Amino acid sequence: MSAMMRAAVLEAAGKISIRSVPVPVPGAGMVRLRVRRAGICGSDLHYFEHGCCGAFVPTRPFVLGHEFAAEVAALGDGVDGLTVGDRVTANPARACGVCDHCKGGRGNLCRRTIMLGSASTTPPTDGAFAEFVVVRADQCHPLPSGLDDGAGAMLEPLAVALHAVKRAGTVSGRRVLVTGGGPIGVLVALTAKAFGAVPVALSDVVGGRRATARTLGVEATLDPMSPRLLDEVRELAGEGFDVVFEASGAKAALRQAFDLVRPGGTIVQIGTLGTEDIPLPANQLMVREINLVGSMRYGNVFGEAIRLVESGRINVRGLISDVRPLADVAEALRVASGKSAVLKVQLEL
Amino acid sequence: MSAMMRAAVLEAAGKISIRSVPVPVPGAGMVRLRVRRAGICGSDLHYFEHGCCGAFVPTRPFVLGHEFAAEVAALGDGVDGLTVGDRVTANPARACGVCDHCKGGRGNLCRRTIMLGSASTTPPTDGAFAEFVVVRADQCHPLPSGLDDGAGAMLEPLAVALHAVKRAGTVSGRRVLVTGGGPIGVLVALTAKAFGAVPVALSDVVGGRRATARTLGVEATLDPMSPRLLDEVRELAGEGFDVVFEASGAKAALRQAFDLVRPGGTIVQIGTLGTEDIPLPANQLMVREINLVGSMRYGNVFGEAIRLVESGRINVRGLISDVRPLADVAEALRVASGKSAVLKVQLEL
Amino acid sequence: MSAMMRAAVLEAAGKISIRSVPVPVPGAGMVRLRVRRAGICGSDLHYFEHGCCGAFVPTRPFVLGHEFAAEVAALGDGVDGLTVGDRVTANPARACGVCDHCKGGRGNLCRRTIMLGSASTTPPTDGAFAEFVVVRADQCHPLPSGLDDGAGAMLEPLAVALHAVKRAGTVSGRRVLVTGGGPIGVLVALTAKAFGAVPVALSDVVGGRRATARTLGVEATLDPMSPRLLDEVRELAGEGFDVVFEASGAKAALRQAFDLVRPGGTIVQIGTLGTEDIPLPANQLMVREINLVGSMRYGNVFGEAIRLVESGRINVRGLISDVRPLADVAEALRVASGKSAVLKVQLEL
Amino acid sequence: MSAMMRAAVLEAAGKISIRSVPVPVPGAGMVRLRVRRAGICGSDLHYFEHGCCGAFVPTRPFVLGHEFAAEVAALGDGVDGLTVGDRVTANPARACGVCDHCKGGRGNLCRRTIMLGSASTTPPTDGAFAEFVVVRADQCHPLPSGLDDGAGAMLEPLAVALHAVKRAGTVSGRRVLVTGGGPIGVLVALTAKAFGAVPVALSDVVGGRRATARTLGVEATLDPMSPRLLDEVRELAGEGFDVVFEASGAKAALRQAFDLVRPGGTIVQIGTLGTEDIPLPANQLMVREINLVGSMRYGNVFGEAIRLVESGRINVRGLISDVRPLADVAEALRVASGKSAVLKVQLEL
Repeated sequence: MSAMMRAAVLEAAGKISIRSVPVPVPGAGMVRLRVRRAGICGSDLHYFEHGCCGAFVPTRPFVLGHEFAAEVAALGDGVDGLTVGDRVTANPARACGVCDHCKGGRGNLCRRTIMLGSASTTPPTDGAFAEFVVVRADQCHPLPSGLDDGAGAMLEPLAVALHAVKRAGTVSGRRVLVTGGGPIGVLVALTAKAFGAVPVALSDVVGGRRATARTLGVEATLDPMSPRLLDEVRELAGEGFDVVFEASGAKAALRQAFDLVRPGGTIVQIGTLGTEDIPLPANQLMVREINLVGSMRYGNVFGEAIRLVESGRINVRGLISDVRPLADVAEALRVASGKSAVLKVQLEL
Repeated sequence: MSAMMRAAVLEAAGKISIRSVPVPVPGAGMVRLRVRRAGICGSDLHYFEHGCCGAFVPTRPFVLGHEFAAEVAALGDGVDGLTVGDRVTANPARACGVCDHCKGGRGNLCRRTIMLGSASTTPPTDGAFAEFVVVRADQCHPLPSGLDDGAGAMLEPLAVALHAVKRAGTVSGRRVLVTGGGPIGVLVALTAKAFGAVPVALSDVVGGRRATARTLGVEATLDPMSPRLLDEVRELAGEGFDVVFEASGAKAALRQAFDLVRPGGTIVQIGTLGTEDIPLPANQLMVREINLVGSMRYGNVFGEAIRLVESGRINVRGLISDVRPLADVAEALRVASGKSAVLKVQLEL
Repeated sequence: MSAMMRAAVLEAAGKISIRSVPVPVPGAGMVRLRVRRAGICGSDLHYFEHGCCGAFVPTRPFVLGHEFAAEVAALGDGVDGLTVGDRVTANPARACGVCDHCKGGRGNLCRRTIMLGSASTTPPTDGAFAEFVVVRADQCHPLPSGLDDGAGAMLEPLAVALHAVKRAGTVSGRRVLVTGGGPIGVLVALTAKAFGAVPVALSDVVGGRRATARTLGVEATLDPMSPRLLDEVRELAGEGFDVVFEASGAKAALRQAFDLVRPGGTIVQIGTLGTEDIPLPANQLMVREINLVGSMRYGNVFGEAIRLVESGRINVRGLISDVRPLADVAEALRVASGKSAVLKVQLEL
Repeated sequence: MSAMMRAAVLEAAGKISIRSVPVPVPGAGMVRLRVRRAGICGSDLHYFEHGCCGAFVPTRPFVLGHEFAAEVAALGDGVDGLTVGDRVTANPARACGVCDHCKGGRGNLCRRTIMLGSASTTPPTDGAFAEFVVVRADQCHPLPSGLDDGAGAMLEPLAVALHAVKRAGTVSGRRVLVTGGGPIGVLVALTAKAFGAVPVALSDVVGGRRATARTLGVEATLDPMSPRLLDEVRELAGEGFDVVFEASGAKAALRQAFDLVRPGGTIVQIGTLGTEDIPLPANQLMVREINLVGSMRYGNVFGEAIRLVESGRINVRGLISDVRPLADVAEALRVASGKSAVLKVQLEL
């Protein structure tokens, strides 16, 4: 009889329960991790609220969660370089490693990716809101002693931000705007600042979120509804921002980005938008040679993320608003989905 | 009393007349060119048909024309490196040379650009459908003896194509689709082929245009309305094209490009679109990490264009469908605006 | 008792014998290939002549050969996407797939690479001068019917050329010089031409090699010892070449490249040089902002190479000077090492 | 009779005198600046010590100095956008603006550049160790009120550092080593840190320079002569540094950089080396795909430099070791040439 563990299983929209399920067994090349801290991401909220996440519809109940810190609990055959007891975080996306996208360094485009806590595959893949999870050895990244579990569970969202910044080419010395003051937006702003963007501005319709962003070190905040917006942009960035990161998922924010970016500048879309088409000024994009690029998850940036946090270049701990025990997962999801100044809610195991 | 010359003056929408106007005088650093051959561009057609070109509305009658071959006729003060009698083409866009865009190598984004034969400035700037035109010395590019005037007047549209290809990064060894079989679309396809793109496909709703493109060396053509389109794309390009150049100016073509480009690929918008917003699948752009970039005129690519044509890498002469005397300018404009297989119509002076 | 096969085993410097050795058995994820055609590379010649190749010293006799066409003969466990009988070529370098270099798209820098027919690992890895060879399934690239075995065995050297061109950024429309008229140098020149470089020049001290290069389509050849060299370069490329590919492995050629490249240009080192330091004008490199970059093997470019050859963009068959049976391997190595106009010698199995 | 001013004129090696010379008159498009603060650069020291700077040999006595803060004193014809009394710094390099290098955004490669305080042209061009200097209007960059004259005169060396960082692609999140703890080396290290490089290390043979660098915020310093060097590098950067900036001008430092850079990494040469060739491991460069790139002056980065200093991202004032009146120029040059921990010496006017 297999050993059992507790896990937060999404049963249906709005219904998540702590259940006893079998402890997963690591095959060859895989490791079993004991989860210690797991963060709640916007996609977890989508699954919880709607029972699905965009086009991803689960075919059975499954365990949510993909941003976490853990401890190596057991090694499958043929694993070296890891030891039971190591503290790690894991890249939750396991790409195939052999397709052209993978070999070209863009594993985030691999069609055979298996993503923890996601219904992007059929059946869905169980995630990290559980006592144990199994990943391939190379998904693991040891945590230095300077990073506690809370920071360790922030590395996945930081990886999202890092990848978005890379999609912009470079932000160093450039004028940057981030639209959307949720966890990803704030992390992009902090990353841009750590990478020498100047100025770094963040816009959000919610005043509390703007205030939180300023508290965390973002120098300028903007209200996208303000009648003075264009004047404020002119004062901050002259002809416009070199780079606009759209991290709100609001259609209006993407549309407005075209008016705030300077000729030759770049808009990076990170926020998940609905599946309908969005009216965009394509002629302006041509005449002013704007680049509009998408950013999807991340490449192999966890090592870099660890060094940035360990060195103090980026402070991720300031984003952790709340930590709850696994048993309170439903309540934690409700707190996280508030539109207030709450940023990151984590579960403790 | 100043000397006079013949010029084709746009009086109003649909009305262009040969008039006698003063010969322009070159100031310091400028040269007067005697025009020998001038091509008709899509923007000339827009001005002729609508009296304006998008947002550019002329405040007085002016001379159209900006793609041409000429002979140096007189030098202003302080010009060296050119001699009266030299055969040249000219970059019709004179950027300021000192703004950040110019100093950064992106003079095509310069707000103070003076463009021949264009109402992008107020008042409009007279162009090359005239016996003489004045440009700054550094706008001139000597034509080698191997390039006749017809080819010389094709260098400006080739520069548009070259710049678009550069905006894609590189096309060498990549799968390329061009949407739109007008002169720019065909030049982009020929340039992509000369740069080692494989395969190179071109789509157009007009069968005659597809046939012409094949005659000029484009390997594969597609009918964007065909029910078999996606199958044909799969055969040609597997997961999709690495780069799609949208050169038709049709909204539907830009929208369709998102379905034909592969994950991580690039769409380059070259064709002039209307000023209204166009519904685009921004979420797909994000999830598949597509790049959508605009391409506006050209940088300093005329020297490269000359070498490519002179060496035989790109054959531009095949695009010249018709050559008419200046006196027939109105008729020539009518011929050029046909949706048939006519590609480039030129005026002889 | 295991089945036996014939293989050309390098016993010592200058000594290679056809021996009967066990047929290799494909493990999980691996495939056994029946070799049909295998080319002789410069590194094979190094091993044959010196018993080693630079720092790579074999610890036991081993089978040379890494550029080849083959047929799938047997599948290991868990292989899909390949069928016994498929005609393929293979990327002879098997990178680990999980280190930072591999995940970053630069598997050619992976320290754990296992290379067929090479002593880069200890013990050495047997190669393709044998009836059978075993590779991982993802190393295989199916050959379209338009590519015969001779062309199929040229894809590996073409991959070397392709990678070198990528290391230069782009060559399209740029002035290119290749130093060294051996197989790699000629392939780089043909690739540069297929990618729209203009002009493309090749230099070699041996007149016969220059003549062969011209026969294969290289437009201009230069004698690096000519007293008129700098004048000829000025005529061809004005201020100098945008890119110089050093494919000769001669120290003097690399040194001379600094005098032939234009300010801001790039020198790509492909040819294997000795292990001693080479005096180079580092101050000139700084003042003129030259880039000197190394090019090592290739990334995942075999699919692209196949499309380029299949489409006729690059003709690799013209380089095959001689085809010999496996039994004549020693003689074939001697022919290939001649400094004459012989380019590629292949073995037939 | 023209007005006269005081200027520090280099008469010969080791001989510099305050002389009375005519105040320069601004022609059309030019402005006269009243110099308020001017820094001493390594090239000023070269001229002072040797009477020349590398290949640049002055044909007559001339005024040194090219890094400075000033006030607009008079406008030539046709200048707009500047007002008498404006505080500015100036890019001392005036490129032609029309050659291919200039139009391509690489004006630092322009052969017709006129450089203040330099013998790179014949005759030499008088510089900023004088009460007045004349520049073209577009060379001027207004100083915000937050930047005092000392900081304003540091923008030119910061521009050197910024350009070098751009030549490396990006340093954000990467492991960086700077060799050489003089003003440029320290500015490169501070810029790399401000751009998110992690870790940032600096090496210098002089312990006092290493201590100063640490005081200014460089996290790790290395002694290039230490027997433990490779171990220390392994601890800091594992397989090696992603980027090594060679800012010492020492041959040994450039040679050693090849042993400290990781596979696929980049070495940027900034320090002025002698004109002799330097033995370098070109084969290692190839096998490990190292990029060796030169960095020469700067492009149009002064606006960015101003924003970085004004925002506090980079603190340049900490490098100012000493400020002396113009009359003490000879003594100031002697102080600046010391190999001690003195970084930047400036002259006050």
